Formats: sequence, structure tokens, C-alpha cells
Amino acid sequence: MQETRLDTARIRAARQVIDPIFLDTPLYRCEALEPVLGCAVSIKLETANPVRSFKARGTELVASLLAGRAAVCASAGNLGQALAWSGRGRGLDVTVVASRFAPAAKLDRIRALDARLELVDGDFDMARERAAAIARSDGIRLVEDSLDIETCEGAATIGLELVDAAPPFDAVLIALGGGALATGVGHVVKTWAPGVEVICVQPLGAPAMTHSWHQRRVVTTDSTDTIADGVAGRRPIPAVLDDLLVVADDAVLVREESIVAGMRMLLDHAGLVVEPSAALGIAAILEDRDRFADRHVATIVCGGNVDMDAYHRWVGARS
Amino acid sequence: MQETRLDTARIRAARQVIDPIFLDTPLYRCEALEPVLGCAVSIKLETANPVRSFKARGTELVASLLAGRAAVCASAGNLGQALAWSGRGRGLDVTVVASRFAPAAKLDRIRALDARLELVDGDFDMARERAAAIARSDGIRLVEDSLDIETCEGAATIGLELVDAAPPFDAVLIALGGGALATGVGHVVKTWAPGVEVICVQPLGAPAMTHSWHQRRVVTTDSTDTIADGVAGRRPIPAVLDDLLVVADDAVLVREESIVAGMRMLLDHAGLVVEPSAALGIAAILEDRDRFADRHVATIVCGGNVDMDAYHRWVGARS
Repeated sequence: MQETRLDTARIRAARQVIDPIFLDTPLYRCEALEPVLGCAVSIKLETANPVRSFKARGTELVASLLAGRAAVCASAGNLGQALAWSGRGRGLDVTVVASRFAPAAKLDRIRALDARLELVDGDFDMARERAAAIARSDGIRLVEDSLDIETCEGAATIGLELVDAAPPFDAVLIALGGGALATGVGHVVKTWAPGVEVICVQPLGAPAMTHSWHQRRVVTTDSTDTIADGVAGRRPIPAVLDDLLVVADDAVLVREESIVAGMRMLLDHAGLVVEPSAALGIAAILEDRDRFADRHVATIVCGGNVDMDAYHRWVGARS
Repeated sequence: MQETRLDTARIRAARQVIDPIFLDTPLYRCEALEPVLGCAVSIKLETANPVRSFKARGTELVASLLAGRAAVCASAGNLGQALAWSGRGRGLDVTVVASRFAPAAKLDRIRALDARLELVDGDFDMARERAAAIARSDGIRLVEDSLDIETCEGAATIGLELVDAAPPFDAVLIALGGGALATGVGHVVKTWAPGVEVICVQPLGAPAMTHSWHQRRVVTTDSTDTIADGVAGRRPIPAVLDDLLVVADDAVLVREESIVAGMRMLLDHAGLVVEPSAALGIAAILEDRDRFADRHVATIVCGGNVDMDAYHRWVGARS
């Protein structure tokens, strides 16, 4: 494999720094999903922890380096919550910049964890600009999701837990947003289990990184239109794209209705409440059953922070 | 502590026999629940595994002893599913007897796991009689939940994971049905962390074991009336009551509306879909906030197998 910015020794060492509450998350076959999906499906569950997403694996590394100082990050919600949690425990003063359109559930948790929260009247990429401006004016550390290596290598510890699985998987489906999760997990999988297909999944309504991957150059979009708020970026980071080109075997786009169908399946057949980004893997199977037929696929359920009103609207009220 | 039927060395050894997929389950503070409950709450999550309940910890032990043979059990649904799963992997021929009123979700999973399923036109205690009759007539092993020591010592491995937690809890809330979970976890907690209060929780509509504990003798009831199907027994087993008298500090009864409120809170604030029995701990806090005020309470979310139609009816459709 070509080099990436990630380092396997650092990824192994990260396990010693990350609070164990975020490590060794459940990984299990979910046979109740399989008749509908036509393949063997294993769930890697990243929602059963204090911040209900995988992001704390990265923020634990960030906060351990910055203990006693101050940092600012832009966040779609999950990174901010995770950095607030890690910062609180390690004496890091945290400011989070988010879109005012981010789910209230995510914003409420950031506030509850004692972080300063600033809202911008725009999307995630506008929050990124504002966070950078705060870092410059206040002279504090800017934590950039997917660009900062700790966010990628923290996520990569999920990969360590996946490649240890027996029997091995045929493919791993990874939600693609900024790219920390995909490059992190992809790096480890391609290093230790190169035969496992690494497939990134993004919504059709937020396709910038997927288009970039296929065209092998950064492609931006003017807007996004998806319920998968956690992965809705418009401006891929060049260094992250470079890594993704090394570690991903494919990047696919899925429709909104498939994401909703995936969320509903995870609720009805697996008892899991997930945010839209976490259903991207199931959506990819639903859209291309032939590709996965009779294979064993692992999908990372990467987050469960969702506004319940919106959630019930999506998965459909029953009575 | 007085002796119970459980043995600490066997409980430690059990960890070597149980498939690791059922061990070291998530244990985490859930701060989003705490403003409403008025105390610190940690969740021990036993639903993120292939059978969505803690019962496989026990059936793994049973199946390891009976590999290649045949067994029958009565089940409210979760034990049967777990025994079917463990049996399939270890060449054990499994028959499950259940009430035809058990949740369809549980019965469907038992069938899907290749167990023989026989339904009785009565409740769990009638299923127990029928299972015993099958064992006698077929000359096969009867697996009796809570009476068979493997079911208690398997559940007790949850206790090992709880007493290792730092900081320690002030109290552990345990769903009480037949008593395997309560005696198992209670035995370990009282052995290694005797200062932690062990509180069993049962529905007012199925109070036989709780009444028995308070009166220190077996008290049966003629019927049960609760949505918490997993704990709805009428005839406590004397040997299990004896153990429970040693390890439990208290046994409390909760109302149906509190169970529903607990399920709703776990959904809205923790993103967890749980069956009614798994909400008993939260229900107990809701009914006696003063008792738990400012203490740190652990509650075992013991199962998530629920008919989704009933679930949505209970927690309330939203749109």
C-alpha cells in the first residue's frame, strides 16, 4: 500500500490514550437484517457510549495533547460533543462552532457538557471558516476534523477492532463525510486485511468527497441537500482526499429514501436508533443487493444523535 | 455473606466458556437521563449482541456442557432465543416451549435460529410444566431458568464487569423475574463490593418473587398482568428465593406507567430501544427519586426484544 498520513504504530498507541469506554465496541452479526439484505451483516456499534458516536476516539487524542489549554472546532454536532466531553475530563477549554441548523439534540448535548457553543447562520463549511477565525483571533488551537491526524488515527482504532474479527469480512461499509472515519478505518483494513473491500458511502445530496475520489481531484459543491447532517460537507480537504485515494476501493452515493429505509431497518430488525449518517452502509446494500449477495459485510453504526421528532417523522409514526 | 448456590471460581471460569461477543458489554454514564432522574445513571447494555439480551451468558455455559445432545427449556422468549443461538453453534438440539402470548418478535427469532418451538395456550408457568413433561417423555435435559446454576452464574459474569467499574456505584438496579439475573449479579456484587446496594425491581402486575422476598417464603400468584413479559412469573423457585434472600438488599414493585415512562426515557434520551423488563430500573428511580437523589446508580438494560407495533403503542406515536 502507498503511504498515507496515518501511522500504524501511533494508531496502536492511541488505544492507550483513549478512555476504554470508547474502545472495543460491540461487533456482532445481525441475522434479523439478513433476509431483507441478502448478505451476512455485522454491526460495529459506536453509539453505546457517553457521546453516542465514534468521534471521541479522536477527541481523546486531541484533548490528551492539549490538556489545560484551549481549542476551537467546527462541528456538525458529534465532533463538538466529543471534544466537549474529552475536554471536560482533561481540563481543555472548548469552543464549538456549529450551524444553527444542526440537530438540537447535538447542540443541547454540547452545551450540557460545558463547552462554549457559537452558532453560524450557515452550513458546516461556514462553521469551519468561523472556527478558523476564532482560532486566529484568540490564538488558540483549531481542531480540524479529518485534517488533524488525531481525528483520523482515533477513528482508525475502529479498524484495529475490525481486522481482529474472525471470520474476516468481505467488505466494510463506511460513512463518508470529511473523511476521518474512512481514511482511519481504511488505512488499518488495507494494512492488515488488504483483501477486505473498503467502500465509502455518501448521500447523493452531499457528494463532494465521492466526486473528488472518482475524479482524483478536489471537487466542491455549492450546497448540500440531505438529512445526513453528519456527513454534509461541500469542500473536501486535499490531504484527506489523497489518503482516501490510497485506502478506499470504492465510493458510492445513495438516495435519501435509502437512508431512511436503512434507519427503519436498523430500528425494526436490530433495535437501534441511529442518525442518518449511520444508516449509509445499510442504504448502500439496499441500493445494490447483487454486489453484496452472499458476502459478509461489516457496517459501522457511527452515531446515534438525532432529534427524536425528526427521527419519528423519517421512520414513520406507527400506532 | 452467607453461602449461595453460586460459586465465585466457577463464575470467573465462565468467562472462558462464554463467546466473547456476549462479554464486556458497554457500561457508561448516560448524563442525558440525569436531569430528569436526579441521580447519576450508568447503563450496562446487554442488548447489543446477536440475541439482544443477557441470556446467552447462561446458555453458553449450558450448551458447552450439553454439546451434541438435546435439551428443552421453557422461555418467555429470551432464554429460548439464547439457547437456540448457543445450541446451534455447539451442536445442541434445542426445543423451546413458550406461551403463545409471548411477543412475536421473540418467537420469530427462536424459529429463525432452527430451534423447535412449541407454544402452549397459557402463560410462562404453564410452559414450564410442558417443558418438564417433554424432558421426561423424551429423556432429554430440561434447562430451567434461574434454577439451573449455569443460568445464574452466566448472568453473574455481568456482576464481574460491574464491580470492576471505577468509581464504584452506590446501587445496582436489577430486573427481577425468575431470579437468575438478580442472584447472579447480586452474588458477585455482595462478594466483591458489599457496600453497593442491590435492588431488585419487579412489576406490580407480577409481584410473586418480590412478595416472596419480603415474606421470606415462597408466595405464588394466580395470574400476572404486566407488559414486562420477560419477568412475568407466578411461581418462584424455592432455591432461587433462598439465594435472593442472601444477596438482595431490597426488592421493589413498580407501576406499568412507570415502566412505559422508563422505556420512553431510554428511547428519547439514550437512543435505546428496550423491552419493558429492561426499563424496570429506570422505573424504580422514577417512583422514588428521593431514595436515589445524588447517588450513582447502575441499571442493567437486560433485553431489547420487543414487538415494534406494541413498542410504538407504548412509547407513543409521534409525527
